[in-house]
Amino acid sequence: MNLDQEIRKNRTTVASVRLTHNGIPIVQQGIQVKQKKHQFMFGSNWGESTLALVNNELSAREKELAELRNEHFFELFNQVTLPFYWGRFEPQRGQPQTERMLKTAHWYAEHDCTVKGHPLCWHTLTADWLLALDNREILQAQLERIRRDVFDFAGVIDQWDVVNEAVIMPIFDRYDNGITRLCKELGRIELIRKMFAAAREINPKATLLLNDFDVSPAYDILVEGCLAAGIRIDAIGIQSHMHQGYWGSERTWTILERFERFKLPIHFTENSLVSGKLMPPEIVDLNDYQVQEWPTTPEGEQRQAEEVVLHYKTLFAHPAVQGITWWDLSDGAWLNAPAGLLRSDQSCKPAFIELLKLIKGEWWYAPTRMATDANGQFTFSGFQGEYELSIGARKVLFQLMEKGKTSISLDI
Amino acid sequence: MNLDQEIRKNRTTVASVRLTHNGIPIVQQGIQVKQKKHQFMFGSNWGESTLALVNNELSAREKELAELRNEHFFELFNQVTLPFYWGRFEPQRGQPQTERMLKTAHWYAEHDCTVKGHPLCWHTLTADWLLALDNREILQAQLERIRRDVFDFAGVIDQWDVVNEAVIMPIFDRYDNGITRLCKELGRIELIRKMFAAAREINPKATLLLNDFDVSPAYDILVEGCLAAGIRIDAIGIQSHMHQGYWGSERTWTILERFERFKLPIHFTENSLVSGKLMPPEIVDLNDYQVQEWPTTPEGEQRQAEEVVLHYKTLFAHPAVQGITWWDLSDGAWLNAPAGLLRSDQSCKPAFIELLKLIKGEWWYAPTRMATDANGQFTFSGFQGEYELSIGARKVLFQLMEKGKTSISLDI
Repeated sequence: MNLDQEIRKNRTTVASVRLTHNGIPIVQQGIQVKQKKHQFMFGSNWGESTLALVNNELSAREKELAELRNEHFFELFNQVTLPFYWGRFEPQRGQPQTERMLKTAHWYAEHDCTVKGHPLCWHTLTADWLLALDNREILQAQLERIRRDVFDFAGVIDQWDVVNEAVIMPIFDRYDNGITRLCKELGRIELIRKMFAAAREINPKATLLLNDFDVSPAYDILVEGCLAAGIRIDAIGIQSHMHQGYWGSERTWTILERFERFKLPIHFTENSLVSGKLMPPEIVDLNDYQVQEWPTTPEGEQRQAEEVVLHYKTLFAHPAVQGITWWDLSDGAWLNAPAGLLRSDQSCKPAFIELLKLIKGEWWYAPTRMATDANGQFTFSGFQGEYELSIGARKVLFQLMEKGKTSISLDI
Repeated sequence: MNLDQEIRKNRTTVASVRLTHNGIPIVQQGIQVKQKKHQFMFGSNWGESTLALVNNELSAREKELAELRNEHFFELFNQVTLPFYWGRFEPQRGQPQTERMLKTAHWYAEHDCTVKGHPLCWHTLTADWLLALDNREILQAQLERIRRDVFDFAGVIDQWDVVNEAVIMPIFDRYDNGITRLCKELGRIELIRKMFAAAREINPKATLLLNDFDVSPAYDILVEGCLAAGIRIDAIGIQSHMHQGYWGSERTWTILERFERFKLPIHFTENSLVSGKLMPPEIVDLNDYQVQEWPTTPEGEQRQAEEVVLHYKTLFAHPAVQGITWWDLSDGAWLNAPAGLLRSDQSCKPAFIELLKLIKGEWWYAPTRMATDANGQFTFSGFQGEYELSIGARKVLFQLMEKGKTSISLDI
């Protein structure tokens, strides 16, 4: 597998562009073309500091660090995943943190970021107050929660991880919670059906995902079962928290081959690789690994950089993958792991620099000057995304969407 | 979990029997009641020697051993699983071994055994000649094979493992075979749908099973997917080849709890426990463990006996389980493993003796004399199955089928 070759094959488009002014070809004119945005979603999850910053809760050094973090965020990313963990979003029934999150979502959208909400239904971090309800009431509360949040955020959040970790959901036995109870009663497929239906009803335009960390056949069988049961899933979400070591390109590819048969887009929704000691292999639930200190190290940062490059190349090479979301841009977030592309002081690790070289370098169409021919045409090959053409002071935007060849007419 | 208590609760019936002669109560008469057969299927798989014996292919010592084996077989069992591995059953396309197998099936049925065919669709031991066909032809051949064999054996084989090991089927990568190719194209659920439909169409009365060795959530999610897709499965088959060590009662129970939600009968279709060294834990595919000698040992036989007793008690205690099929009555069959209840010389291991004490002792209603009361009635509590009542020289058969209490009227 030559990844670079597959990337070029699947991610670039040869565009033959015809330029006119009021229908008359603009011949032999100098122009400039530059890429403005990737079609592919290169994203990351929220930072707590960004939520605080956007909501004017920071000052002094904290504010500076948050701003620095965001600068780096937008150097790399065009997608963000925002947290809707029920237990945190609505700790008191009837008092959701809608306003704070809506402000954050709008802020990202204004920065031309695609915003995804995560998750609508999950057994972990769900609302404790569900425990006082019976299953019928839990179901009702869960569906109402979905309808409310999908409605409140429609237009700014049109992508949702609807059900998270359904494979383990009914057999999760670490602690009692309302969603495991519900899933045990309904079964996975029936629960997924109801949750997707509620989200779909409120926002028919939304991209609705099933998301899981389980990449065993159990998950692809679950997807198959949902589809065979007539549930429409818009994209398959696959987590890859690799705190215990990089999967490697080959294993990743094998997993992609198991899911590609559904002919659905695949989002790699949660990607982690640490730049420090690996988490011990005997840990089954990553949340069990609680450490005070988990430092980033120079050797770890080198390893992380190499792995990040190979991981992104592998995923970008596969035509089914539509997005990669890095989990925690800066160190010190989930599990206190050195999984950031930035250190705690928001300085760039080698992984960040290497990723920038790919996303805004090797995989990016840099500003290029050329001229139209005697028919007012020019041809170029670029990565799929949004482009800007300048002719003198005039600018026009256009898009390259499909791989292969395309013809575009622009009247300016 | 008090297994003995659950067994009594789920497997016995208190029967109040009213005895009449031409409608007139038979009062204060001495009678005898004895159990003839278990409702529960206690079974085992075929022996090659039995196939040969029934087809008059044996003589001298071989014949004696085969007869001795069969004597022991019928001491314990009321169910047999016969082999329909496609590559062996029809090594040359168009020349199936129907006659030899039909003779064997009838022979078992004449011995009051329920006969199950195993399997109709499986990637392992499938016909090599499929490799010369394209997928459309493989599908056609597979469906024709199902229709032919289900038709030829209907009435004597009305129980089939229709699809075997579907969880691994499309990702089985040890060697190329026609069924893996087909399953990769169709997907598991669509393949299962087609195979079940073909079998159902030919023998609507048949009990059709999905069977798997995978007891991870992948299998129960597959069952859920099939049911959600509208496929009717009559019973769930679970293999438990424990060559690498006994699962233990608790793990077995946990697995049963994951499958009981489907409210379908469960058959433990293939049960093995060895009376010698355990197979090393690093072996993933049991078929990879090829040894010349794998002796039974006195300590191993003690361990096996204890485990067999606990395994059978665990399964018999769970109300969803309808049958247990021991895999290889005598040593030296599959993998040359000492998994027999009999040694190679057909002598009984402790496990056989202990199992006999349960199946025809503790769980068996021994011949009992009693008398009808002034209304022609008597009450007794017995294990579900077939019974014979004698009054003088007259005999009448009746059945206890449901747990709890039942009223029966017999006119003799």
